[in-house]
Amino acid sequence: MTVHTTTIAVRFCETDALGHVNNTNYFVYLEEARIRLFEQLGYSTDVHEWRFILASAKCDFVRQAYFGQTLEVETNVGNIGNKSFQLVHRILDAKTKALVALGEATVVYFNFETQKSEPIPDELRRHLEKYAGADISNQLK
Amino acid sequence: MTVHTTTIAVRFCETDALGHVNNTNYFVYLEEARIRLFEQLGYSTDVHEWRFILASAKCDFVRQAYFGQTLEVETNVGNIGNKSFQLVHRILDAKTKALVALGEATVVYFNFETQKSEPIPDELRRHLEKYAGADISNQLK
Amino acid sequence: MTVHTTTIAVRFCETDALGHVNNTNYFVYLEEARIRLFEQLGYSTDVHEWRFILASAKCDFVRQAYFGQTLEVETNVGNIGNKSFQLVHRILDAKTKALVALGEATVVYFNFETQKSEPIPDELRRHLEKYAGADISNQLK
Amino acid sequence: MTVHTTTIAVRFCETDALGHVNNTNYFVYLEEARIRLFEQLGYSTDVHEWRFILASAKCDFVRQAYFGQTLEVETNVGNIGNKSFQLVHRILDAKTKALVALGEATVVYFNFETQKSEPIPDELRRHLEKYAGADISNQLK
Repeated sequence: MTVHTTTIAVRFCETDALGHVNNTNYFVYLEEARIRLFEQLGYSTDVHEWRFILASAKCDFVRQAYFGQTLEVETNVGNIGNKSFQLVHRILDAKTKALVALGEATVVYFNFETQKSEPIPDELRRHLEKYAGADISNQLK
Repeated sequence: MTVHTTTIAVRFCETDALGHVNNTNYFVYLEEARIRLFEQLGYSTDVHEWRFILASAKCDFVRQAYFGQTLEVETNVGNIGNKSFQLVHRILDAKTKALVALGEATVVYFNFETQKSEPIPDELRRHLEKYAGADISNQLK
Repeated sequence: MTVHTTTIAVRFCETDALGHVNNTNYFVYLEEARIRLFEQLGYSTDVHEWRFILASAKCDFVRQAYFGQTLEVETNVGNIGNKSFQLVHRILDAKTKALVALGEATVVYFNFETQKSEPIPDELRRHLEKYAGADISNQLK
Repeated sequence: MTVHTTTIAVRFCETDALGHVNNTNYFVYLEEARIRLFEQLGYSTDVHEWRFILASAKCDFVRQAYFGQTLEVETNVGNIGNKSFQLVHRILDAKTKALVALGEATVVYFNFETQKSEPIPDELRRHLEKYAGADISNQLK
């Protein structure tokens, strides 16, 4: 099982007045992890060739995160359907490997010109399968 | 059934290079709706008296949103447990009332001094019950 | 002298761990004020017809701002050149009218198709002149 | 002359509907550079020991930046006063070294407990002097 890992250094402006990282920024970290995975799979960062649209995003917050902390987002691919696939993320403290959050995303293979979803090409499917994770239903309730 | 409504004017910096509102900003809108509801319930905006921490947030993206659009976030309270409760949100286009997104949050009643969750006080429970929605399991898969 | 006013309710996620509004968000407020002024002048919010690009932005932070506060951004037009013009902003507390920050922006009239600046049309110049402020050099050092 | 350098990978959510990096995010990059410099100088990232408050920030936008680009923020110290000092930043494309933006900040040595500015300690002054740049007035108009 191959895991894709993205390292994130928490920025000061990502904290809020409660002293911890504001919940909305976990979704920034998850987007960063998702897009780095797409790059790894050979997808262009040119928006004119963009092929993915987000159908759903979820984050379970397990531990508060703080400024000064380095995080690792580990990403695996879950279920791969006809036109969409699931990503599952674990946000860890980079030093202690303590679990900070669990994330989940449903990504649709999308044609921005026609504004319609399309079947996942075989090549993408094969690439995604390399990152197939364990049974996700056990991880996220 | 009382619904809490927050109006959001999409800001230009909330869009991304795909021309639509970036997914991470829907969670900004949901936080705004959540906190305006807490204010309505009589909770202070003073962080030293802050009583809520987010355990989970989810958003299903139904339609793309754009700059120039005004959105309405309708919020209801779902299941109320011993120490936590659920919020369910519908993000609508303010003019057409078309559904833009569905949101869901699990909020824990939390003491930031002791850093521990606490049972929901009766008064808060009564306030939350006023916003109790229809069966949420029918709305969100 | 006509002043353009935009009202901003500080969002929780705009604060940082120092308990106040993070400096980067003042520039979000200034962009919001700038774009609302452009709308007022009759400019489309459609990005395909977008005509303005920012050459410079500045903010002097006078008082800390906090969650729960409502701010007013007052905007006037400063010097109008051949292809660019200046905006000057005062961010005030909406209740007390205490000065929170002073902002300044240089905006270039820009053609995004050719990616070149163009002379300011007479009609825009006349519109901008309605918002001409007092001598800005006295306000900002 | 020692220059402090911070590397920034542009995130997708930092772009806007014009296809480029939104102006407000340059100030996020400048804050990141500023705080990494403070860390380098031995200052704690613990907000309870935080000693710096921003009095002013400015950015001149020279070239548009895009998703997929890596940026370098080079920082030098300008004038060091009794209770405040200036930082001057150059944002460059990491590959081509093309100038993307010029930044400037005035930072006040600040006691958050008393909420008052304080004279810059000799040790900090000596540290800052190591990053003293060339005459800044030549760089920024």
